[in-house]
Amino acid sequence: MDEYRGQKVLITGGLGFIGSNLAIRLVQTGASVTILDSFDPTCGANYFNIEPIRNDVEMVEGDSCDLALVRGLVRGKGYIFNLAGHVSHIESMEDPFADLQMNVVAPLTVLEASKHENREARIVYSGTRQAYGRPESLPLLETQVLKPIDVNGVNKLAGEWYHMVYYRAHGIRTISLRLVNTYGPRQLVKHAKQGFVGWFIKQAMVGAEIQVFGDGQQLRGFNYVDDVVDALLIAGANDSILGDYFNLGGADPIPLETFVKVLLSITGRGSYRIVPFPAERRAIDIGSVYTSFAKFNSATGWMPRVSLEEGLARTVDYYQRYQAHYW
Amino acid sequence: MDEYRGQKVLITGGLGFIGSNLAIRLVQTGASVTILDSFDPTCGANYFNIEPIRNDVEMVEGDSCDLALVRGLVRGKGYIFNLAGHVSHIESMEDPFADLQMNVVAPLTVLEASKHENREARIVYSGTRQAYGRPESLPLLETQVLKPIDVNGVNKLAGEWYHMVYYRAHGIRTISLRLVNTYGPRQLVKHAKQGFVGWFIKQAMVGAEIQVFGDGQQLRGFNYVDDVVDALLIAGANDSILGDYFNLGGADPIPLETFVKVLLSITGRGSYRIVPFPAERRAIDIGSVYTSFAKFNSATGWMPRVSLEEGLARTVDYYQRYQAHYW
Repeated sequence: MDEYRGQKVLITGGLGFIGSNLAIRLVQTGASVTILDSFDPTCGANYFNIEPIRNDVEMVEGDSCDLALVRGLVRGKGYIFNLAGHVSHIESMEDPFADLQMNVVAPLTVLEASKHENREARIVYSGTRQAYGRPESLPLLETQVLKPIDVNGVNKLAGEWYHMVYYRAHGIRTISLRLVNTYGPRQLVKHAKQGFVGWFIKQAMVGAEIQVFGDGQQLRGFNYVDDVVDALLIAGANDSILGDYFNLGGADPIPLETFVKVLLSITGRGSYRIVPFPAERRAIDIGSVYTSFAKFNSATGWMPRVSLEEGLARTVDYYQRYQAHYW
Repeated sequence: MDEYRGQKVLITGGLGFIGSNLAIRLVQTGASVTILDSFDPTCGANYFNIEPIRNDVEMVEGDSCDLALVRGLVRGKGYIFNLAGHVSHIESMEDPFADLQMNVVAPLTVLEASKHENREARIVYSGTRQAYGRPESLPLLETQVLKPIDVNGVNKLAGEWYHMVYYRAHGIRTISLRLVNTYGPRQLVKHAKQGFVGWFIKQAMVGAEIQVFGDGQQLRGFNYVDDVVDALLIAGANDSILGDYFNLGGADPIPLETFVKVLLSITGRGSYRIVPFPAERRAIDIGSVYTSFAKFNSATGWMPRVSLEEGLARTVDYYQRYQAHYW
């Protein structure tokens, strides 16, 4: 990733799970990194996430929806990773306006700031397969009509499509990756509101019983965070795939129960039980879902490289060392 | 439309083009109508629009994004027409945050208010074919992937999908109609920012030269506003089509140049000239586009009944009588 050496890079949401892993890699690569983060605890922001690079990044604690602030920050940047956002589907149903602010207003603010201040920057957005809603066929392809089934999915869809519009209408070089069940170090694992993966990992590590909703046979694809960081960097560096959107996804779909069994074999602790869906989760559940990343693979060669066993082992190791900062 | 007699109905954006025509029809039908309108002149709000019923409606001038206000207004209503919004594609590119407020926050506010106060109301949303973006084939069907090409299209898409989510997750009985080039009395015709139809009508009536962008052969479907009001009322009264979205559309696609010729034959004044697209409009132009309304027709029997000649004649007659309030 020589493209990033010596480059100025802005990461919104850089204290969060994906953003902090990306920031660490970029600093290692020799980039000059600025992080903008609102330090909203519901977003997974955690100062400890950037502990390895805390003296090497410019850290701005501020509102990603503050256009004046963001206009100042996008100036002179070569790359912008537009990652700030809420990730909780459940919370988006409880407080849809908070989700709207972070997932619709915030990404639009970055684009509008770039329109005014810096049309040369490459902007990479972190979309989500949640925007598809219930899959019409599997694996999910980018050609499926987007039919989000929760407020978070609607808002992330809007956030993504602003990027497409700003490319087409203003020539700003954008790209969106649709992320899928990312896991790994630096994820919020305190509670289950940001998805089951981090929560399951913590439950297993503390020796608790994991509740698997449904029948446990629903299929999912998983991406280890290092593979996602690879994808984001590749996306930002590739000028042949502008104004477009691409699924990420796991190499193989895995039944949820299998995921849990692999996890428990690594932790050597914890247990699981198959239980019926609670009503509020059933309302936004989508059954089996996994994506094809063939479009992104054929454009860039990217594919996930870290196996589930290896990724979970690294993740468990990380939280064992630093659990005081995450439990 | 006996379903509406004696019913309490809320119309957001009821001073605007579609909302005021709907309000007049509902009052004639014997409904008890409350209008909420922010009186934002960029939205086409015009007090004269409700002149025929001004003593027969409850008029609330207020912000459709004010959740406390809207919570009070949705209580006890049988039907809610969620029409408040910005309609200018050009303005949405110039001030995307204003468009976001009216097209994303406002419709979500109505839904969230209903979730808290009144889950029994039927909610009808006015979507737009603009959310499709450039057609992949013609006529446009509801199965086409939504690929909006301007900020207004993205925002209207989000506004619509909240309705789908609130139906599925909260059981609120919603429906969205995707409107297409509606024209008729009470449309804003002062400037061209809200679409070409009203602007062309005024230009013809004042004897000016109409500029037709492109080659004039781009096809469009048109709906006279009375047909759209029919569709909205039918949509609200039909409990078998919940949580779904339907195209409206004209009976036959018409080249833009033909539309102008019909118009000029009715006004007996004005002229036209074919001119190249200005850059800012070319960026969001989508060529020929017309929709199929077969899905809505097969669900409800609706079809447009007013011919272009008849609709334009009634429209020109209206503005001739009341032009002081619209020019």
